[in-house]
Amino acid sequence: MLKRYATRVLASFLVLLLLCASFPLLPAYSKDYPVVKNVIFLIPDGMSLAGTTLARWYRGSSLAMDEMACGLVRTHSAVGPITDSAAAGTALAAGFKTNPGYVTVLPDGTPVASVLEAAKLAGKSTGLVVTCEIPHATPAVFSAHALSRKDYDTILKQQVYQGMDVVLGGGHAFMKPGARKDGEDLVEAVKALGYEYVTDPEELHKVEAGKVWGMFAPKALKPDFDRDPVREPSLAEMTAKAIEILSKNPKGFFLMVEGSQIDWAAHANDPVYLVSEILAFDEAVKVALDFAKKNKDTVVIVAADHGNGGVSIGDRATSGNYSKLPLSSFIEPLKRAKLTGVGLEEKLAPDRSNVIEAVSRYYGIADLSEEEIKAIKEAKPGKLSYVVGPMLSKRAHIGWTTNGHTGEDVVLYVYSPKGEKLTGVVDNTDIAKYIGKVLGLDLRKATQELFVPARMAFEALGAQVYWDDRNPASPVLVVSKEGVELSLPVNTNVAKLNGKTIHLNGLTVYYGTKTYVPQAAVDLFKAAWEKARASKAA
Amino acid sequence: MLKRYATRVLASFLVLLLLCASFPLLPAYSKDYPVVKNVIFLIPDGMSLAGTTLARWYRGSSLAMDEMACGLVRTHSAVGPITDSAAAGTALAAGFKTNPGYVTVLPDGTPVASVLEAAKLAGKSTGLVVTCEIPHATPAVFSAHALSRKDYDTILKQQVYQGMDVVLGGGHAFMKPGARKDGEDLVEAVKALGYEYVTDPEELHKVEAGKVWGMFAPKALKPDFDRDPVREPSLAEMTAKAIEILSKNPKGFFLMVEGSQIDWAAHANDPVYLVSEILAFDEAVKVALDFAKKNKDTVVIVAADHGNGGVSIGDRATSGNYSKLPLSSFIEPLKRAKLTGVGLEEKLAPDRSNVIEAVSRYYGIADLSEEEIKAIKEAKPGKLSYVVGPMLSKRAHIGWTTNGHTGEDVVLYVYSPKGEKLTGVVDNTDIAKYIGKVLGLDLRKATQELFVPARMAFEALGAQVYWDDRNPASPVLVVSKEGVELSLPVNTNVAKLNGKTIHLNGLTVYYGTKTYVPQAAVDLFKAAWEKARASKAA
Repeated sequence: MLKRYATRVLASFLVLLLLCASFPLLPAYSKDYPVVKNVIFLIPDGMSLAGTTLARWYRGSSLAMDEMACGLVRTHSAVGPITDSAAAGTALAAGFKTNPGYVTVLPDGTPVASVLEAAKLAGKSTGLVVTCEIPHATPAVFSAHALSRKDYDTILKQQVYQGMDVVLGGGHAFMKPGARKDGEDLVEAVKALGYEYVTDPEELHKVEAGKVWGMFAPKALKPDFDRDPVREPSLAEMTAKAIEILSKNPKGFFLMVEGSQIDWAAHANDPVYLVSEILAFDEAVKVALDFAKKNKDTVVIVAADHGNGGVSIGDRATSGNYSKLPLSSFIEPLKRAKLTGVGLEEKLAPDRSNVIEAVSRYYGIADLSEEEIKAIKEAKPGKLSYVVGPMLSKRAHIGWTTNGHTGEDVVLYVYSPKGEKLTGVVDNTDIAKYIGKVLGLDLRKATQELFVPARMAFEALGAQVYWDDRNPASPVLVVSKEGVELSLPVNTNVAKLNGKTIHLNGLTVYYGTKTYVPQAAVDLFKAAWEKARASKAA
Repeated sequence: MLKRYATRVLASFLVLLLLCASFPLLPAYSKDYPVVKNVIFLIPDGMSLAGTTLARWYRGSSLAMDEMACGLVRTHSAVGPITDSAAAGTALAAGFKTNPGYVTVLPDGTPVASVLEAAKLAGKSTGLVVTCEIPHATPAVFSAHALSRKDYDTILKQQVYQGMDVVLGGGHAFMKPGARKDGEDLVEAVKALGYEYVTDPEELHKVEAGKVWGMFAPKALKPDFDRDPVREPSLAEMTAKAIEILSKNPKGFFLMVEGSQIDWAAHANDPVYLVSEILAFDEAVKVALDFAKKNKDTVVIVAADHGNGGVSIGDRATSGNYSKLPLSSFIEPLKRAKLTGVGLEEKLAPDRSNVIEAVSRYYGIADLSEEEIKAIKEAKPGKLSYVVGPMLSKRAHIGWTTNGHTGEDVVLYVYSPKGEKLTGVVDNTDIAKYIGKVLGLDLRKATQELFVPARMAFEALGAQVYWDDRNPASPVLVVSKEGVELSLPVNTNVAKLNGKTIHLNGLTVYYGTKTYVPQAAVDLFKAAWEKARASKAA
């Protein structure tokens, strides 16, 4: 590790130069938007326009987000017109285009500050609320930095030490020592960091202030449609609790809420999973909007990261008679389903001998063909949604073009209590810049403050820098000079100064290439060494 | 005809009651929007969101309409979630939901005033600019009233006598005596009504003021991508000329511009036809927007009537690798096409012996399979676009779900020179109401002024009402009392008072059910009879 590091000094320097040089070239985000105290950013992952319309028809009344519709968002990544959630999320969270899979690092690997990190630097409270596992791409981009969204070990540890106030979602399986390369128990870590650690709705509702870390399932939460409300809170419940806690900070807050599984429903082409997830998401939007309207100092933003599925109301079978079909032709088949395809899978017998009964009872399809029964019996574990979703879609005349993401613009929704708001067709990077603007943050300065190339900075102070990699999965950057020693365990905000633990305002970030530390680490070391030198001289 | 009429008196009365009673139940359009002099309403027929994004990528720069994106529009008809252009257009033009196929009449058959008609009543100039035939659904809904969009005879005659200032598009085949049941020569009629009648761009460009009626093709114009600029003007050219002429009226104007063939391209699933039509439409938006920004007293609205095709960037083949594909994977296949599928059809030999050469040369596809060659050879006349469009789509990874319209919301685009503008998710009927509001029009009053049930009104004056149907395809309503005789040829604004021709401010509307006349016809008759009686008494 030491050797690899030596070769990176020049590279780091060049990247820093590039980073600094690139800032003036960025499109200036010059419009004046009024500054507010709080921003709630709700992301319906993978929500395409037709899904929203379908959800509205399914519910039979307007969506909470409807009144906020005010423009469109371009979603492409640095490499192509169809993005993944990591590259799209990086744009939304930090204002930069990057490669698919990258978690709030530039295409060259350099980390950049997210609006959540910048809000935290400004003294605001911060939170994440999701229905996927916490280290999944969209929550990750606001709270971690990694070259791969799949690197849950790195991402989750950074999230634990990021210093957020409210973190609610799923994924406690990834917290356990046995699941982690570094063998750490992150549940113990969050408790040690002062979080109330909760795992069911009852425990969650008891929390009234302070820091809370809630994980209500080993991995993702259940689809909302299949959810047991005693075991798992809804997205709206989690959003309400997050706002209750975060809004106690007189300096304000930033909260990101993700409707995580809208995307998964679209991947599966499962229409009842899709509309139920969109409606659950919209309930969370309603909670945020109701708060914002009372609070009068909160901007609410809703924007998907990308489209998914190529969903449409109407399919090949309606090519000739679309205008004659009543609403019931589309909605009644969906209304008959009592579970998503995910929930249905749990109702199938291990030998799948009860396909006809289960599909009839829970999915409302009583006319399965022999071919369809066979397909359901042969469906791979965890993929039933992909098999029955299209069967339901066919009966409801819902069209799909793909099991992947799609490249169309997504809808921009903004509520602002005063003055002008973001509108028109904007780039996804503009949303991070808009959040920065309305919260009065300086994202560029936050990046400079949080991500200093470590070796260069410490060596400039004449210090020795080396790796303590006794636990190779959890290396510690060690900086020493004349008896002053600073230890910086990677992916944490911990600094041990001659054995004394201090929590910094940012992370020591290492994900296999370079190491970055917050300027606070450099300042801490410098001050300690200067003090030591002064006391020696005295 | 006389007998049928007698049974309708009670029905007419009930409908009038219903109509009046229904008004207070309509959602009040209460918001205050600043009043402007002019409105330009551009309708990209059948434009779905992904088409817009694809067109932007194809061009490689922002669309003129991008900066105007400000919300969404619900598109459903009175009968179901997927509308046709007539029902959608009726909502956009007049503010009422109706049945598919209905042209600005309510589901019960009652005509309602369009914003164009109301603008005309208010002394404003009016115009229609399209690339389809003039009696096609979207131009029809602004300028005619019929129970069927297919009733070109009725629609076109009403359009000719509607008193518009600028009418530009295609369809002179439908003007000819041989093509019409009533045997009338509508070209001679428009000339007699004082229009400059033009048939090519050169003639169009010479017109500088007055009324102009331009028809540049027997039916629809060519797809823009295949267009010969000497023979047919572009939508943008027609829009510029229309604005030049209409803006001479100090009282302002209302202009409707339709990107008619975006819809046809989507029906065919022909991606290069789609993007080229959207880009041609966007050029017209640019013309309108440039005028509005200089003029400072013009609102520009862009809203599709419905989605179409279920188009997506990405298809089944990209389900697994969507985020890795560069832009070129999607755009280069489209860039290789030099004609739309419509234009390509004209390049095929009558025996279709040159399929491989023609498709390679003009559509940029050099790897046709045997199956594809066969499909092209067997394509029905006029339907080649439906066959080669999907072949190109497959190579460009453009997905489609249907050859029909789709039910998702469409994007709302508004430019307003001052104050608040329409935003959020609005109903398509809200757009007509918004236009009424910003032009200071009273749509309800316009309906009352333009559509008076004829028999009831004249019989209330003690007059006799009967049909002169010597030409059954062109009946004349005759009203007489004590030597005063008023003849009202249906589907015209002509009134003959004791043989003297007067042009009224509205049409005598008859489309097989009831007859409506403008209040002006009733007033005219009443005044003439009162004058006659007074002179007899004297």
